[in-house]
Amino acid sequence: MGLLKELCTINLSEIGRELHLFAAKLYPICRSITGDGIRKTLNVIQRKIPLQIHEVQTGTSVFDWKIPKEWNIRNAYIKAPDGQFVVDFQQCNLHVVNYSKPIHATLPLSEIRPHLFTIPDEPDWIPYRTSYYNEDWGFCLTHNQMLTLEDGDYEVSIDATLEDGHLTYGECYLAGRSSDEVLISCHICHPSLANDNLSGLAVATFLAQHLSGRDLRYSYRFLFIPGTIGAITWLAQNKETVERIRNGLVLSCVGDAKGFHYKKSRRGDAEIDRAVACVLRECNEPLEILDFSPYGYDERQYCSPGFNLPVGCLMRSVWGTFPEYHTSADNMDFILPESLGGSFQACVAIVDALERNQKYINQNPFCEPQLGRRNLYKATGVESDGREINARLWVLNLSDGENSLLDIAERSGMSFSLICDAAELLNQSGLLRVMPA
Amino acid sequence: MGLLKELCTINLSEIGRELHLFAAKLYPICRSITGDGIRKTLNVIQRKIPLQIHEVQTGTSVFDWKIPKEWNIRNAYIKAPDGQFVVDFQQCNLHVVNYSKPIHATLPLSEIRPHLFTIPDEPDWIPYRTSYYNEDWGFCLTHNQMLTLEDGDYEVSIDATLEDGHLTYGECYLAGRSSDEVLISCHICHPSLANDNLSGLAVATFLAQHLSGRDLRYSYRFLFIPGTIGAITWLAQNKETVERIRNGLVLSCVGDAKGFHYKKSRRGDAEIDRAVACVLRECNEPLEILDFSPYGYDERQYCSPGFNLPVGCLMRSVWGTFPEYHTSADNMDFILPESLGGSFQACVAIVDALERNQKYINQNPFCEPQLGRRNLYKATGVESDGREINARLWVLNLSDGENSLLDIAERSGMSFSLICDAAELLNQSGLLRVMPA
Amino acid sequence: MGLLKELCTINLSEIGRELHLFAAKLYPICRSITGDGIRKTLNVIQRKIPLQIHEVQTGTSVFDWKIPKEWNIRNAYIKAPDGQFVVDFQQCNLHVVNYSKPIHATLPLSEIRPHLFTIPDEPDWIPYRTSYYNEDWGFCLTHNQMLTLEDGDYEVSIDATLEDGHLTYGECYLAGRSSDEVLISCHICHPSLANDNLSGLAVATFLAQHLSGRDLRYSYRFLFIPGTIGAITWLAQNKETVERIRNGLVLSCVGDAKGFHYKKSRRGDAEIDRAVACVLRECNEPLEILDFSPYGYDERQYCSPGFNLPVGCLMRSVWGTFPEYHTSADNMDFILPESLGGSFQACVAIVDALERNQKYINQNPFCEPQLGRRNLYKATGVESDGREINARLWVLNLSDGENSLLDIAERSGMSFSLICDAAELLNQSGLLRVMPA
Repeated sequence: MGLLKELCTINLSEIGRELHLFAAKLYPICRSITGDGIRKTLNVIQRKIPLQIHEVQTGTSVFDWKIPKEWNIRNAYIKAPDGQFVVDFQQCNLHVVNYSKPIHATLPLSEIRPHLFTIPDEPDWIPYRTSYYNEDWGFCLTHNQMLTLEDGDYEVSIDATLEDGHLTYGECYLAGRSSDEVLISCHICHPSLANDNLSGLAVATFLAQHLSGRDLRYSYRFLFIPGTIGAITWLAQNKETVERIRNGLVLSCVGDAKGFHYKKSRRGDAEIDRAVACVLRECNEPLEILDFSPYGYDERQYCSPGFNLPVGCLMRSVWGTFPEYHTSADNMDFILPESLGGSFQACVAIVDALERNQKYINQNPFCEPQLGRRNLYKATGVESDGREINARLWVLNLSDGENSLLDIAERSGMSFSLICDAAELLNQSGLLRVMPA
Repeated sequence: MGLLKELCTINLSEIGRELHLFAAKLYPICRSITGDGIRKTLNVIQRKIPLQIHEVQTGTSVFDWKIPKEWNIRNAYIKAPDGQFVVDFQQCNLHVVNYSKPIHATLPLSEIRPHLFTIPDEPDWIPYRTSYYNEDWGFCLTHNQMLTLEDGDYEVSIDATLEDGHLTYGECYLAGRSSDEVLISCHICHPSLANDNLSGLAVATFLAQHLSGRDLRYSYRFLFIPGTIGAITWLAQNKETVERIRNGLVLSCVGDAKGFHYKKSRRGDAEIDRAVACVLRECNEPLEILDFSPYGYDERQYCSPGFNLPVGCLMRSVWGTFPEYHTSADNMDFILPESLGGSFQACVAIVDALERNQKYINQNPFCEPQLGRRNLYKATGVESDGREINARLWVLNLSDGENSLLDIAERSGMSFSLICDAAELLNQSGLLRVMPA
Repeated sequence: MGLLKELCTINLSEIGRELHLFAAKLYPICRSITGDGIRKTLNVIQRKIPLQIHEVQTGTSVFDWKIPKEWNIRNAYIKAPDGQFVVDFQQCNLHVVNYSKPIHATLPLSEIRPHLFTIPDEPDWIPYRTSYYNEDWGFCLTHNQMLTLEDGDYEVSIDATLEDGHLTYGECYLAGRSSDEVLISCHICHPSLANDNLSGLAVATFLAQHLSGRDLRYSYRFLFIPGTIGAITWLAQNKETVERIRNGLVLSCVGDAKGFHYKKSRRGDAEIDRAVACVLRECNEPLEILDFSPYGYDERQYCSPGFNLPVGCLMRSVWGTFPEYHTSADNMDFILPESLGGSFQACVAIVDALERNQKYINQNPFCEPQLGRRNLYKATGVESDGREINARLWVLNLSDGENSLLDIAERSGMSFSLICDAAELLNQSGLLRVMPA
């Protein structure tokens, strides 16, 4: 039974709830591009799937970059002249500018102000800020909080370390019949942000779990990595593996209420690009296909010109385009169980399409074979409008070694699953055989 | 004088009437995919054109198929308990399911009912049904007839033979200067159906007659064959000829009142595809171009992947899309003399385009030749708006060995005939010469 | 500083006024395809730019043509029976059919009429007529003038010579770093016509002056030639130079009030075609791109199939489509200083684009280089919306040796100048290098 057909028998709303619970468990952890937040996150993922955890030393060269110092934070606050906590890391880990260097000092408000960040247009939201490659410190708070601050001396404390250590990432490899690989990549470097990071890693985890132990054509490699530096590190240290990647998908922002956006790979017409367009058009959710651009998530690295990998990016809302992006409003209420479930279903459908998409060779290429005497000129089951027969005729007609099932679905305008069903039936009947790679 | 120009001097409405009379003569014959109905039909055609009649024995293997037994029918009826004929083959040959095995029995109505076919939505029409490859018997009648049948024992009689014999088809070959061929194919296997079979074979017959004895560039091969099995048989037995086919056209349903539909070959950009689009756009009738699909008429076989011949299909109404299709309403009133005449004219225009479409080589490719001193920089005859001169400039500019006249017509947006006239005039003046094949 | 940026510091309306004055100085001269009118015109141009003047003898063969006799005119008139001048060459040089053979005779009006040309629909305008290759004589006058003529004997006089002599043209060559050439061509064979001939030659002259003495990548060749025969002559006598032409532009009708029309080269996708589309879309004036056609100006010759040069044609109004075309209404009022200035600016922008358009090679093709530590991940200057950074990412991502900056601008949808600025900045930083030709 195909991955997708089996999925129909699964309770998707139950999966949606589980995905949401899984994300909720990871939500409070203060992640960054290095440090214990990532380790804790990977440990939770490891309980679900066979995950290899890699540690790469500070200072290691990865292409044009170097692994930065490891950042760990225990606590942080700003205490008002009256002793009240006005900003408290324990309340929300977004309060500290991610990668802030340690500080403990009492300073007049005027000297602190340049280190405070708010969103005047959304005065109740805390912004998310980082300072990875520029040693500095800072706090994020709501604009309304900031407006209440009166002059005076404030105690600022960031109890953090920024020292030589490691960059940590997780990798889950599921071996298939072929060493050709499908890459699924998500970033795990954001602290309490739900859509932007948790939604992607949750769906990736559940997808790996769903595929684990199956007889698959492709091998599947899941990367749970810090954004940018993580992808660069993995690419730098896995040049041979890279050459086996046939398709790839970056998953991010797949939990909000909107329809799908798929950003094509740099190639624009890779199998993954066409497969996503083909199968997601058949699902019930809206789909918008975006051209590649060199900004976004780690497809930036996978699609850099030296690699030019066939890797696209599946999102619901597009990063940077929704007001909650990189704020405290990207919380567990912003992602919905049914959206997570729908994204999981979409990923299974995409994998199913990659698994099923092959070239077949018509064994009777001269004229049509006599379908009637093989009982293939009648519809099977409920469908009786001729679509099944037409799908068989399309597959026979175009299976000349040039066309994959995706090509046939595109040219015929028929659904990919109908074309696959036809091909598999004709294959069983001996009228087709799979074209060797 | 070109084929098309000569045609302008012919009385097209007279040709339309003759085509209709010719079809009317063939209408009563009970044709099938084998048997005497086909032989009688071919004999009538043979009175108009030099036709070679082929007989292929039952049991002969043709690719994945075998020539079936030959079917011949003399009479058939259903007699009511009161002795009245309720269904009578002599009234209409559609009453018998085509290829019914013989039967003579008296049976209660309840046992006959599974063998009766009607069209409830069109209660006064008789459906057309076949059972070629599944031995069975049956009758077709109007739904209103069926509603009058009362319980009781009925005498059913089908006086037919289904025995080893032959499959019969006709072939007319008109040799041209080149052994490259244009194939014109039509099916002749339907009994009293006018648009679906008679219109095509009538137009094909008249076209062959019109081309016969002319000095033509291409050789022309006309096939009058039973659908599917006839095309498969011819392809199986003429593999060497197949390789000489440069263009082809299946003709069917070219007699009804609607505008033209042209279904492109599997290649989609074959010369025939572009020629039909180009010349039929210039005629006064509506034209819709359809993409190839692997269902329809014998283009299914010609365009099977092992052959992939450049063969399209010219229709007015598309098979299966009009209510009269495969019913007694597809009768001689359903096809019109003016439609048949217009289809004949379209076919002549298509042949004319194939004959005229060539590549020429500009003999003065560096800068324009001085048209003025050759008196070619003035319009000839009535046209004075510069279009003739522009056509000459286009032909000169693009006749670099890459572009055929069709290419030039397409790129310039000018009419194909204007471009051809220009090329032929420039050729006479020595400014062009025909590019060797 | 780039050509275009420098232009921003120049007073364009001042240049527009100078262009108009320059054209006004040339307006009264009676030019033709040969003769002293052309020589006087070239002498005026020569005062502005280093111009080489060529003389080619009558009778010289140039491809399919021969250099015609040289035509010079001193005076011409028609005198009425009462001794009044009814047509006087001294008033307007359009009054004489260009290339009229000499005549001096007294003739009845009825014999003169076949030699008189007017525009009945524009009764106050004098038409412009020529008879280069058909020896004849004639006069052009307003329709209203003609209506006043009464029967009687008129004295007609054309004091002209049509004798062996020369065809004259001018050539200005500006050597660049590469011997690859950009050709700028304009016709200089029309008498008192402003938009059609003076506008183009004025802009070409000023452009040559602007480029003169600069350090340029391409070499630039400006041709000031009689239409058709001049281009044919130059092409016939410069076959080796022709092979070095990488881009070219015919300039004509660039002075009227309308937006730009650019007619593409025969190739349709040459660098010049794409550069013009790209940079003129960024200017404030309307732009319409026209497909190539083999009628028009000297692109007809440059784009003849033997040459097929990448030469397009920049116009404002398209020849033949405006009522003033080839009439006395195409006078100095019909061309506007601001239009001439805008056309000059457009030409500089096009040259600037050709100069800047190169392929670069990303020196860190594997993953993104770390822009942050090079201070390239922040916008420079006033722009702070990220467009500058995005432009850098686009240039880095696509600089794989396949894509020129034009390709990158087209794919990214960003402005060409933004892409160029990004490339030049990245080049300075060592992240790119120019791809060798």
